[in-house]
Amino acid sequence: MTQYNIAVVGATGAVGTRMLEQLEKSTLPIETVRALASKRSAGKIVEFKGQELVIEELTEDSFEGIDIALFSAGGSVSEKFAPYAVKAGAVVVDNTSFFRQNPNVPLVVPEVNAHALEQHNGIIACPNCSTIQMMIALEPIRRAYGLERVIVSTYQAVSGAGQSAINETNRELQEALDGKALTELSAEILPSAGDKKHYPIAYNALAQIDVFTDNDYTYEEMKMTNETKKIMEDDSIAVSATCVRIPVLYGHSESVYVETKKEADIAEVKRLISEFPGAVLEDDVAHQIYPQAINSVGRRETFVGRIRRDLDAANGIHLWVVSDNLLKGAAWNSVQIAETLHERGLVRPTKELKFELKEGI
Amino acid sequence: MTQYNIAVVGATGAVGTRMLEQLEKSTLPIETVRALASKRSAGKIVEFKGQELVIEELTEDSFEGIDIALFSAGGSVSEKFAPYAVKAGAVVVDNTSFFRQNPNVPLVVPEVNAHALEQHNGIIACPNCSTIQMMIALEPIRRAYGLERVIVSTYQAVSGAGQSAINETNRELQEALDGKALTELSAEILPSAGDKKHYPIAYNALAQIDVFTDNDYTYEEMKMTNETKKIMEDDSIAVSATCVRIPVLYGHSESVYVETKKEADIAEVKRLISEFPGAVLEDDVAHQIYPQAINSVGRRETFVGRIRRDLDAANGIHLWVVSDNLLKGAAWNSVQIAETLHERGLVRPTKELKFELKEGI
Repeated sequence: MTQYNIAVVGATGAVGTRMLEQLEKSTLPIETVRALASKRSAGKIVEFKGQELVIEELTEDSFEGIDIALFSAGGSVSEKFAPYAVKAGAVVVDNTSFFRQNPNVPLVVPEVNAHALEQHNGIIACPNCSTIQMMIALEPIRRAYGLERVIVSTYQAVSGAGQSAINETNRELQEALDGKALTELSAEILPSAGDKKHYPIAYNALAQIDVFTDNDYTYEEMKMTNETKKIMEDDSIAVSATCVRIPVLYGHSESVYVETKKEADIAEVKRLISEFPGAVLEDDVAHQIYPQAINSVGRRETFVGRIRRDLDAANGIHLWVVSDNLLKGAAWNSVQIAETLHERGLVRPTKELKFELKEGI
Repeated sequence: MTQYNIAVVGATGAVGTRMLEQLEKSTLPIETVRALASKRSAGKIVEFKGQELVIEELTEDSFEGIDIALFSAGGSVSEKFAPYAVKAGAVVVDNTSFFRQNPNVPLVVPEVNAHALEQHNGIIACPNCSTIQMMIALEPIRRAYGLERVIVSTYQAVSGAGQSAINETNRELQEALDGKALTELSAEILPSAGDKKHYPIAYNALAQIDVFTDNDYTYEEMKMTNETKKIMEDDSIAVSATCVRIPVLYGHSESVYVETKKEADIAEVKRLISEFPGAVLEDDVAHQIYPQAINSVGRRETFVGRIRRDLDAANGIHLWVVSDNLLKGAAWNSVQIAETLHERGLVRPTKELKFELKEGI
């Protein structure tokens, strides 16, 4: 039986460490795992199935003999190194945004559009965390009734901005609890490490995730719009998002409003969601049952509740959608893509390289 | 010149203490302030303009000689005692939900519908915190373009549930920072003191504020719907809300989507909001300027930003609306109503008592 050599790029990060955990629990037949990271992390030890893995420095030559490479070390790392992995014969599952809108790259949530994997050219993109969980909630509705439009407001965990954002949040909260004024707290990471100004997240809500685009939406918001259209293969679905960071470490919550093409039956919507793979219906308001971020941590599923008809629009439905942003939103969806590639016999070298090999890196 | 005798009912609570602060800063000519609370708090001392006020126990006879009574001690207290205050000749400004939908009671945000005060019958209701700040943001839009529908998702501070919820939140956060598992934290207040189950708010988002109604919306959500229609005097405005508590102590944030009757110009919307009394435009995404809960604390204004057209609906606008829920959302709006009553010569005894005096209390 085939056994795979797997590389994890960004193995020391918040997502990378969870990729290793998800690989440990995976049904993939694994021969070896190579843990790759920046020079700074090289030599560190991470554990995999009780054995020690020494972190190796990522270079152009890191992918010799690799069958599957999972990338989660930032868009510029994927841009530079993923084509080398493909050239070396690996299939790349990329968790960054860099290749997501590339027409040669399938953007996949396995429960929703696994079929898109069939035509892959060596790189498969994992969607943004906030998009993935919304897809799990909306796909059963789309299949039954069609989707006209989506309006979503997110309540996103700081871990989406990496381990340094987690540390910053906890440090700020402790300082605030010790009596420091909130507006006096220092911040260096949030709302977006790549932007100029940084604001405290302790006891705050920041209506900025990633940087702003020139249409006054953030990149995070435009990811939700553009990725939904690509995954559902329907540019006519209208999606507008407001993405907000809140002082939660793990687990994104989303207030989703959707208008269907055909009028939906709410009881039927609940049944369809409860039967959809990867979705868990948590909707019993008489007993105060609805999804909660703290209950989603460590779970692979997406939790859906507060399902109710809009008070005025007959074809409008409101939902509350929660998932562990580091698992279904990143590490698990990536490993799940790898499992699906394996199940469909799609882990194979690509003949024609469709991605640019950048020089001088 | 007339000088008023003012009573504050619930003077030791999170809102009541701020009512006293707002009265200190008020333009109202004040003769005396009587601080009323439950028997449990009677005898405690609160400060007002450098003098000590002794908390008196609230009884039916507490309103002798009172001109204006500000209530914020829960709906059942207002139900029982507000009519006695009116009978004694006072004008009541009630911060609870009890009288808000009563047709004999104006529901007032002074910047929006001060005219409704003219016909008062002794009780004026202060709307729910989450409604008030949304009204400040939407009224300038309504006046210029008309409102078709509103979809709002809130990010509400725990102080809306009182001082005990603040204490619970801080205790939970400290226990979590000290290493306790989030799902092991104990909770006794949130999401709703009056409901059966209680959940931790630390690092969590709870899609329940107040208890559920039989249409699967919460009372908090229905308040936003029903109060908007009453304040704007237009039952045709469609409003559906999702109300969510997050680990913030002070300052509610709201992601508001609004569809106007006439297509709006976004630059004009920004100008109208910037010129509307009580509103502050904070909208300059090129410089990462948008409203933040921590910046709203202690301020009377409502801050509006992230104003942008929906990506698909030509008449759709998204806004991010933030205000101090204890000030404009409660104490300041109540005191502001009292100031407006004074300015319009409406602080006067009511001849015909239109509210039931409950016996045996």
